[in-house]
Amino acid sequence: MSHPQILFPQTTFTGPSLLQARRETIQQVTVKAQLKKLKETGQYDCFNLKWQPIYDDKSRWPSPPPVYWDSDVVKWIEAACYMLTEHYDAEIDAAVRELVQMIRDAQQEDGYIDVYFTVIEPGKRWSNLRDQHELYNAGHLTEAALAHSNYYKNDLLIEVVHKYVKLIRSVFGPGEDQRHGYPGHPEIELALIRFYSTTGNQDAYDLAQYFIEERGNPTGQDGMMYYDWEREKRGDSPWKRPDSFPMHPAHWYSQAHQPILQQNSIEGHAVRALYLLTGVANLLSLDELGIKPFAGKEQYLKTLRTLWNNMVDKKMYLTGGIGSMMQWEGFGIDYFLPQGSGEGGCYNETCASIGVIMLAERLLHLELDSKYADVMELCLYNAVMTAMSLGVSTIGRGARTRAGSSVLTSEKDKNIRAAWFDTSCCPPNVSRLYGSIGGYLWDYGGQGQDLFVNVHLYTTAEVSFQVDEHAVIFRQKSNWPWEGNVTFELEAPPTANTTVRLRIPGWAKKRFMLTPTVKSATLENGYLVLPSSYTSDNKVFSIEIQGFEPRYISPHPYTNQRTLTLARGPLIYCVEDVDNPWEQDHFRNVGITIGTEVSEEEHVIDKMGERYVGLRTVGWVRKMDQWLQREVGLEPGLSVQGQVPEAKELLFIPYYLRANRGGRGFPPAYLHYAIEPAPREDAVDTVRSLGIESGQIGVAWTDAMYLRPE
Amino acid sequence: MSHPQILFPQTTFTGPSLLQARRETIQQVTVKAQLKKLKETGQYDCFNLKWQPIYDDKSRWPSPPPVYWDSDVVKWIEAACYMLTEHYDAEIDAAVRELVQMIRDAQQEDGYIDVYFTVIEPGKRWSNLRDQHELYNAGHLTEAALAHSNYYKNDLLIEVVHKYVKLIRSVFGPGEDQRHGYPGHPEIELALIRFYSTTGNQDAYDLAQYFIEERGNPTGQDGMMYYDWEREKRGDSPWKRPDSFPMHPAHWYSQAHQPILQQNSIEGHAVRALYLLTGVANLLSLDELGIKPFAGKEQYLKTLRTLWNNMVDKKMYLTGGIGSMMQWEGFGIDYFLPQGSGEGGCYNETCASIGVIMLAERLLHLELDSKYADVMELCLYNAVMTAMSLGVSTIGRGARTRAGSSVLTSEKDKNIRAAWFDTSCCPPNVSRLYGSIGGYLWDYGGQGQDLFVNVHLYTTAEVSFQVDEHAVIFRQKSNWPWEGNVTFELEAPPTANTTVRLRIPGWAKKRFMLTPTVKSATLENGYLVLPSSYTSDNKVFSIEIQGFEPRYISPHPYTNQRTLTLARGPLIYCVEDVDNPWEQDHFRNVGITIGTEVSEEEHVIDKMGERYVGLRTVGWVRKMDQWLQREVGLEPGLSVQGQVPEAKELLFIPYYLRANRGGRGFPPAYLHYAIEPAPREDAVDTVRSLGIESGQIGVAWTDAMYLRPE
Repeated sequence: MSHPQILFPQTTFTGPSLLQARRETIQQVTVKAQLKKLKETGQYDCFNLKWQPIYDDKSRWPSPPPVYWDSDVVKWIEAACYMLTEHYDAEIDAAVRELVQMIRDAQQEDGYIDVYFTVIEPGKRWSNLRDQHELYNAGHLTEAALAHSNYYKNDLLIEVVHKYVKLIRSVFGPGEDQRHGYPGHPEIELALIRFYSTTGNQDAYDLAQYFIEERGNPTGQDGMMYYDWEREKRGDSPWKRPDSFPMHPAHWYSQAHQPILQQNSIEGHAVRALYLLTGVANLLSLDELGIKPFAGKEQYLKTLRTLWNNMVDKKMYLTGGIGSMMQWEGFGIDYFLPQGSGEGGCYNETCASIGVIMLAERLLHLELDSKYADVMELCLYNAVMTAMSLGVSTIGRGARTRAGSSVLTSEKDKNIRAAWFDTSCCPPNVSRLYGSIGGYLWDYGGQGQDLFVNVHLYTTAEVSFQVDEHAVIFRQKSNWPWEGNVTFELEAPPTANTTVRLRIPGWAKKRFMLTPTVKSATLENGYLVLPSSYTSDNKVFSIEIQGFEPRYISPHPYTNQRTLTLARGPLIYCVEDVDNPWEQDHFRNVGITIGTEVSEEEHVIDKMGERYVGLRTVGWVRKMDQWLQREVGLEPGLSVQGQVPEAKELLFIPYYLRANRGGRGFPPAYLHYAIEPAPREDAVDTVRSLGIESGQIGVAWTDAMYLRPE
Repeated sequence: MSHPQILFPQTTFTGPSLLQARRETIQQVTVKAQLKKLKETGQYDCFNLKWQPIYDDKSRWPSPPPVYWDSDVVKWIEAACYMLTEHYDAEIDAAVRELVQMIRDAQQEDGYIDVYFTVIEPGKRWSNLRDQHELYNAGHLTEAALAHSNYYKNDLLIEVVHKYVKLIRSVFGPGEDQRHGYPGHPEIELALIRFYSTTGNQDAYDLAQYFIEERGNPTGQDGMMYYDWEREKRGDSPWKRPDSFPMHPAHWYSQAHQPILQQNSIEGHAVRALYLLTGVANLLSLDELGIKPFAGKEQYLKTLRTLWNNMVDKKMYLTGGIGSMMQWEGFGIDYFLPQGSGEGGCYNETCASIGVIMLAERLLHLELDSKYADVMELCLYNAVMTAMSLGVSTIGRGARTRAGSSVLTSEKDKNIRAAWFDTSCCPPNVSRLYGSIGGYLWDYGGQGQDLFVNVHLYTTAEVSFQVDEHAVIFRQKSNWPWEGNVTFELEAPPTANTTVRLRIPGWAKKRFMLTPTVKSATLENGYLVLPSSYTSDNKVFSIEIQGFEPRYISPHPYTNQRTLTLARGPLIYCVEDVDNPWEQDHFRNVGITIGTEVSEEEHVIDKMGERYVGLRTVGWVRKMDQWLQREVGLEPGLSVQGQVPEAKELLFIPYYLRANRGGRGFPPAYLHYAIEPAPREDAVDTVRSLGIESGQIGVAWTDAMYLRPE
């Protein structure tokens, strides 16, 4: 019961904040807009198991969009249930009820439920775990069932999952008659552990553990790697492979190139990797619930740390975006982080950074360390938040960019927002995240009289929880992410001893002031630990976290990226031509120099009342005519050192705001951005909003977000 | 008759020079060592059409190495014939004679000759032009026949080609019963035009023109693109594809994604692209021989210019290396030029830069412009020369690195030299090039009394030629590439009016001194034009070309590469740890700063007597401990600006010398470097010898080689 998706109703957002503004958009507009999309596309009706014209389209292999339809629908159900918890809507309620009935009716006699392999390719169940999505769909169905049961207090979907899990457990496992396979797209692992922790279904636990431990076994099935075995069984050539596999074999694509415990670097499809590791972390954190620890816990925890560090230190953008390679929507080699898709990188799918948030939340339970929460916040306010449009119209409001976090725009890839996608995993995922975000703000609990609250994210909210006979209310109030002052209030019975831990973000560089002051507090793994003596003496206290002055940031020098931008608190900043209309070429030749003065400006977006802090500074424009004098032939270009570049005033805005107000990178109209199998040019190409070059090398940046000021 | 491969015997190397030293190695050691390798591998015997055990190996698709064996053997024949022209060797002579007889015997009744489809997969002739190499092998056989006939003065191989061309012409063409295909690996086009220009075989001309004009036709065969049509005929899935095709379709891999005239950027496999464009240039330059100009000449010439400029301006390394992408051994997107394979780029196959030399040579005939000769020289002395080991033992002397021009080494890819490869295209290609390099130094000719000599490359050599009754001898003598002084001597009948054009390299920045001086000379397209009045007054004259002072160079700023190195004259310089033994990590953290003093040192390699100019300067070492303080967590890295990096003395050597004297990147032993289908990590990984970072941005570098001094 410790998961944020279950616990979030204990948290209430009690005042205006940037997070709450986004949550209101989701609740009031997005969930409904997404329902409309589901109905338009035919997805809403897919569980009625009738044939739809789109099923005739055989142009995509191995995964025509209906392969994922189940998951799009059930993720929407999950998001809708989160929304209904706080904001009742009769239309949404009715739709959920109707869908749940359709799903119950769609379940086969033996428990199987998957639209594609029931309607479109019956008889091919479980024939291609590597490429297909039955188990992925089953995982999302499981999560939807938990959300549904949590809101509706009935087992209408839970029953479906119990039945389906029983079937899956009979098919997969170590037994001689069982298949020794595991999902090509992990997800079910994290869902099964959550299902087990709520329902106690032992099959769910065993399946999850099996999928995790068997994964990547080179000789698992008849002496072969499972995916190779099933491929031979299908009669497919080893060289017949999805477009996302650049070469054969490419089992690294789904993190199955070796057993998880042997993996030293995070590889392949980013969403798959993060969902898999979240599943592992879910398994490891079960002992928090009093369940006996998983035998391999220490080994797996070591692997989780190794893969997390590899990702954060060497494969993450400044924005928290991951997955530089568009072709496989995943990780490149260490330090391969081109700043735009037009430069060969920067796919950065929104779902992947949501996965980082999920994994970070779990790791905070396994070992409290602010490095996890720092990255969680980085992703939340930057890579993920930028995926959601501000929305000035009903149609626009549900819009996302799937490759949400590309850093640079270019003429080839303007990173245009879309209301929906053929593979529409990200839109309902954002809705799910914001619907349950209350559960990520903090964790809390205790035993007997000894209670604790660990605060990971600052905003304005309160949480009510009970440990044994102790009912606690804990409140925070702030203007985060704009200001660092946060006021707390603790209501707890006098008999409770409550320890409060407050995250001090890395960028604050240990600079904070607590009021009232405290002598005995310590800083442990990035958390200021306020002992129960302090919290009982001070029911109200506040912290002023420093680090909201603008600072220059730049990626690790091994990335070879000559880029530099600004940050302020947890927010990464960028430039858009809508604010700097003199710019014509996606800031390709625009630079800033470290040390140039930066001033802050309060801005308000007309009509919406959305406020933000802009940063104004002076940059320079490189004169490219000297570089392009091919006709001169004998005259090499002049030295840049001898050149006086033109000075230009620049307004920086928070990265999450980009692509909302028009401009060359981001047209004001919401156009459709088709995710088609692309020719090679598109595989490494895409749009530019951060085209900033440093006049200096190697601005310090150690991890994903430890940045330097002067 | 204007091709260097035919004309080279008119040129004699008349004294010591760097080029001549390499030529002597080839003649005295390499050709024999390669013959030994051919015999060891079974390639020598392949034309006897007997089964060999390796033919049972089905682990590679679509091209097991024997697919190319024909070409490896006939390229060796070609190189051997060039060698024999100057340096008779009875063993080589006997081997050529034996091979030629085997080839004659191997030719089928109908003229077909290809070992793989005769012995290993009979009945599958012409079934897969996209992936297979029948036409490529045929092209190389054609070139071998021309070299053979030129030396042996008989038609033993020429006859084979006449017969084979007739068959190919009957199979492919515009006729209703003909196939509308073209080779997946271009080569035959350039060979057929050469064959036509020597023998007048009209089928050869027609075939070449057809292959060029039909290429990329989207509806060429039954309304389909030819490669798709033949794939359907084979019953292959569209998603079954070679490992070199990252996605499907990938017709850009073989420059067949659209008709040549519609191509605006150079794409795909670099060797294929360069051979194809050389074929086009060969076709266009036929009118030089008095043959009526090809109808599409102007259009095709425009396309050649566009593709050349795209390659040189946006897709070429400082060394003249091309093809940053290892997976498809070819071009990436514009400005995608990572400095090492460990950073995701830098495949730079030797054959590809040899292709640049071939294309440049042809373009100089189409439009004399020093920009072509500058790049030709850049490739010759850097990307190509570095592929050949200096050789201190017989075994070592034939050695090459196939991916010869990787710039940086790393622990993962030490760019180890190999004596041979499974796909061993580069070693005999280097032998061919050096065997005929005399033909690339200059072109010459004229009409009636008006003669000309255009000097592209400087060395010590002489050429004898005759125009009508005028017999001319033209000599040059220099210590190139170490010094810029070149002395010329012209022996021509008094009745001849000889114009001499001398290339002024881009890096000379128009700085040169002619002795005796001349008033009326002009600089046209990078060539100093000496009118016949000057050459008749001055039978001996000399030019002192400036630009041999060390200069700093750096790639175009759009490459985002923070690299900087030194150059001197036509030579690019690099560092190796063998000279700088304090370095432990492939110079990953070593930098130099523009403007630091550089001194020259004469070096001699012991025992070999090989002399070179080294460059000594002082660089700095970045302290990385501050970047790696993950455990600190809250403490961001320090500013590099505030850091005083450690100063270190650095010795730079010519890039072509690297990997010959041991060191971390280049072990002294010659180890085998297998070209296996690699997992994805290897697809973008590979060795570092130029790990230099600039303390400054954007050192001027406009084209591939227009570099700046101060």
